[in-house]
Amino acid sequence: MPILGQNQYGKAENRVVKITRDGATHHIKDLNVSVSLSGDMDEVHYSGSNAHVLPTDTTKNTVYAFAKEHGIESAEQFGIHLARHFVTSQEPIRTARIRIEEYGWERIEHTRQGAHSFVRKGQETRLTQITYDGSAWEVVSGLKDLTVMNSTDSEFWGYVKDKYTTLPEAYDRILATEVSARWRFNWTDDERETPDWEESYEQVRKHLLQAFAETYSLSLQQTLYQMGARIIDHRDEIDEVRFSLPNKHHFLVDLEPFGLKNATEDGAVYFAADRPYGLIEATVLRDGVEPRIPVDLTNL
Amino acid sequence: MPILGQNQYGKAENRVVKITRDGATHHIKDLNVSVSLSGDMDEVHYSGSNAHVLPTDTTKNTVYAFAKEHGIESAEQFGIHLARHFVTSQEPIRTARIRIEEYGWERIEHTRQGAHSFVRKGQETRLTQITYDGSAWEVVSGLKDLTVMNSTDSEFWGYVKDKYTTLPEAYDRILATEVSARWRFNWTDDERETPDWEESYEQVRKHLLQAFAETYSLSLQQTLYQMGARIIDHRDEIDEVRFSLPNKHHFLVDLEPFGLKNATEDGAVYFAADRPYGLIEATVLRDGVEPRIPVDLTNL
Amino acid sequence: MPILGQNQYGKAENRVVKITRDGATHHIKDLNVSVSLSGDMDEVHYSGSNAHVLPTDTTKNTVYAFAKEHGIESAEQFGIHLARHFVTSQEPIRTARIRIEEYGWERIEHTRQGAHSFVRKGQETRLTQITYDGSAWEVVSGLKDLTVMNSTDSEFWGYVKDKYTTLPEAYDRILATEVSARWRFNWTDDERETPDWEESYEQVRKHLLQAFAETYSLSLQQTLYQMGARIIDHRDEIDEVRFSLPNKHHFLVDLEPFGLKNATEDGAVYFAADRPYGLIEATVLRDGVEPRIPVDLTNL
Amino acid sequence: MPILGQNQYGKAENRVVKITRDGATHHIKDLNVSVSLSGDMDEVHYSGSNAHVLPTDTTKNTVYAFAKEHGIESAEQFGIHLARHFVTSQEPIRTARIRIEEYGWERIEHTRQGAHSFVRKGQETRLTQITYDGSAWEVVSGLKDLTVMNSTDSEFWGYVKDKYTTLPEAYDRILATEVSARWRFNWTDDERETPDWEESYEQVRKHLLQAFAETYSLSLQQTLYQMGARIIDHRDEIDEVRFSLPNKHHFLVDLEPFGLKNATEDGAVYFAADRPYGLIEATVLRDGVEPRIPVDLTNL
Repeated sequence: MPILGQNQYGKAENRVVKITRDGATHHIKDLNVSVSLSGDMDEVHYSGSNAHVLPTDTTKNTVYAFAKEHGIESAEQFGIHLARHFVTSQEPIRTARIRIEEYGWERIEHTRQGAHSFVRKGQETRLTQITYDGSAWEVVSGLKDLTVMNSTDSEFWGYVKDKYTTLPEAYDRILATEVSARWRFNWTDDERETPDWEESYEQVRKHLLQAFAETYSLSLQQTLYQMGARIIDHRDEIDEVRFSLPNKHHFLVDLEPFGLKNATEDGAVYFAADRPYGLIEATVLRDGVEPRIPVDLTNL
Repeated sequence: MPILGQNQYGKAENRVVKITRDGATHHIKDLNVSVSLSGDMDEVHYSGSNAHVLPTDTTKNTVYAFAKEHGIESAEQFGIHLARHFVTSQEPIRTARIRIEEYGWERIEHTRQGAHSFVRKGQETRLTQITYDGSAWEVVSGLKDLTVMNSTDSEFWGYVKDKYTTLPEAYDRILATEVSARWRFNWTDDERETPDWEESYEQVRKHLLQAFAETYSLSLQQTLYQMGARIIDHRDEIDEVRFSLPNKHHFLVDLEPFGLKNATEDGAVYFAADRPYGLIEATVLRDGVEPRIPVDLTNL
Repeated sequence: MPILGQNQYGKAENRVVKITRDGATHHIKDLNVSVSLSGDMDEVHYSGSNAHVLPTDTTKNTVYAFAKEHGIESAEQFGIHLARHFVTSQEPIRTARIRIEEYGWERIEHTRQGAHSFVRKGQETRLTQITYDGSAWEVVSGLKDLTVMNSTDSEFWGYVKDKYTTLPEAYDRILATEVSARWRFNWTDDERETPDWEESYEQVRKHLLQAFAETYSLSLQQTLYQMGARIIDHRDEIDEVRFSLPNKHHFLVDLEPFGLKNATEDGAVYFAADRPYGLIEATVLRDGVEPRIPVDLTNL
Repeated sequence: MPILGQNQYGKAENRVVKITRDGATHHIKDLNVSVSLSGDMDEVHYSGSNAHVLPTDTTKNTVYAFAKEHGIESAEQFGIHLARHFVTSQEPIRTARIRIEEYGWERIEHTRQGAHSFVRKGQETRLTQITYDGSAWEVVSGLKDLTVMNSTDSEFWGYVKDKYTTLPEAYDRILATEVSARWRFNWTDDERETPDWEESYEQVRKHLLQAFAETYSLSLQQTLYQMGARIIDHRDEIDEVRFSLPNKHHFLVDLEPFGLKNATEDGAVYFAADRPYGLIEATVLRDGVEPRIPVDLTNL
């Protein structure tokens, strides 16, 4: 008889918005929370008995109730609360994984109503994933959809050439990518102090952007490593970073048929291509640490 | 025999990026340009004769060549150049319509490379559409995907009730929408001075946001009118504004089954719904002006 | 004071699924219904008074209640019921527009449970739009996302060449497009019999596909006209058809650098491009009829 | 110094279409091919030296050249050719992973041109992933976006109830999901005969659909297991199957406020919800086999 392997279930994409009032000044937390539970669930697969199954609808209700009861200080803290609850309150549940997307908002400026009027930031989506099995914690945070460009300070040459190679070398090109990154905290429940999750995020984002900007790049791989190394070097709370970086190609358009020189020195015109695209993926680790972030990053 | 009616053709979604260098400081224009031409095109439809057809591939080449030859001061100015070229250079072409999406970039802060390192702004996409028939010009600019929220100062009551009405009245609700707006300039080629297109956009965006924030709202329709009226009142160059505003519903979650009171006074928890959504659409006009923006806004 | 122009409102994208049982055999209707109402609505815009406003929530409730009370024979008939209801039951409402997307399902074959087991068809989405102002009806149906390809029998040559033209002529190319079409019925409530809406849709779809396949094409415009003309010629109930046809370019890959001949005669390899794409749009009319379908097709 | 961990690179989403002619009858293969290579790549990350880097552009060229030189019998066979080429022709490359999406086309019926006129099937997208490290092969095929529904024969009751549980039990509900599945072949290059990849796909798809239809379901987990077990039992070439099944909720609408009874017995009206959704994921294995498909399925 075929055997059941790894399995998990829960309610995905619970959209929860919490408004906290500080007098006339309001604060928003805007999350998309996905719950995934696993444990002693053989019977529901083999026979359809739900005797061990907490309904996914209940996991949804719990998300909303916890947002009220415990508040949302940060996505990480909220996920930790939820994971602990599911594992400790339900005997058959051995492991809980909480994934959260967070959408940023900023105040509308130059208005008397800025205290409770907001415009949604559109750059990256912030991410976190909390996994708890009753003893060990794993917190991986990250971001996706952060698009960046260096309009110079990028070259690409000296590569392997085989019979299928036609690419000309480039000594001044655009380097652009849409950053998807995940970083793993070395936080454990009892051994160390808890990071300031909000501050940590802002600092990681800053280092990542600075390393992108300040690396004179001979390949996107080099830029990737610099981004990861900068985070590891500056943030003690983080042991591992993984990136998935599509190379958003900007091709210099051939304008010679029209008697025009299209050089990078000034006023260059590029075609921003969709597909195909180079895809560069790698992990950067603190020395001596074992990697745990999966090779294929999955968004929520 | 069936008759040919209105027809148009061209190359859509030409992705053109231009980098202008001012010493070490670079500037980006990042556009998605769609060309649509119409004129004496009966034969290509009836018999397949392409004798009057400028290939869509040529319209693409023209976009790239013009970006180099004439530069891109603003999306509006670039569209005007292109529209004039197609109508005046090709006998069978009577009307050109150029639609442009523009993506914003801002400099990466706190880095030595900010001069040529950028992060893509993610809020709205800027839009413009230029139409020229050899004599009259129509310039309609706008934006889409600008998501805004007031976390209070919104009510909804006193509405019609019929046998299918179950909605309870609301005296303190979230009002959120994703703004899609188009505004028409009264610019003509020769009668008036040309607006500063960049400055005009920034000002319209500012008034739109302020009106959204400062309107104590009894209905999204009222907020819409205030946004349009504020633009008409402050910007002489604009005669007509149309909005398409989805009501992004945030429903107060019923937490009573869990013994929790979920009131708007503080710490309220909302479910952000996807579908269905209210959709409010209207035009606001300068008194005495005829409307010309179509009822159904189409994005590029 | 700025003036209110055309305005409309309602609940968009109500997802309604109805299962009808005929013994053990079930039937599905799976619709996405958007309601848009207009009429005497100045006050809600100017002052926020909702005294004339039927809530969008009520229009949603009406959709679900009507699905139960009146059933869903076809999307067109369902839309007609709804439009008549809103205009005749509410004094301030003068015009109702109902837009419906319909998703097809087919039975899972070779199984005992085919009577109530289904797989969703993935080709086109069926569309209809019903407009009623208390006296005149307009029914426009259509489809979108139907992707078709002729792998030969398409040429493109003899076109205008200007200084920006570099495209080589083609004597055997792939012609592929993603059909978006709308067709207007000449149906009026009292003058003629009502068409069999389901049969009409199937026949229009068949003629459209046959005309695409059977036209030896010298331009996509010619193919478009043949598709429209075939529908007008065969379907008396339809007076007008409009198409929006992106030219899904398939470029023959240059394999000469690798010593390979890539000819269309056999085994040709193509790059399927995303953007930019040619976009061909036109209306085909029954002789003597006035066009009423807007130039820019908007999907739901 | 931070350490480089797992890394891979290549050109993603190469869209390749091959037309093979058999007299007047044409055949289409329409693929989206992503190449990912790894090996001795430390230097490019640490110093930017590309001396071991075959450009992603070359991997793209190779895809197109191989489509011409070796043809595309099946996505699996094509991926095997490519993976072997990269690993055996380039010293620094140790492992190649080829991911392919395949889009189906069917002939346009009832036309003389059916031999070379096609309409794109819209149901599932077919998938395969080939991994080769110079000695061992792993072939995982699958599909995504196949939406199925049973309009009855589904119940859900007898589940755990905690303080956050409000869900009423259901004795006759709709069960709908959008199947994402991956199945791993036990094929190795030399030990066994190569499966008929096309026939294998058709048979797996058939068993999956039949198991979905024929399982009287007490939980989506039970249906999932039956789908996997049916595949393992009937297809000797497959050792492992993993599913990710979102529960596409169809909620019975409460029509009592309008005096209507909305029972499942006949003519029931449902609201098809978007988010949140239950998400059920599990692996089913041949007894004695080790699992190798990752817990989180990633699409191309």
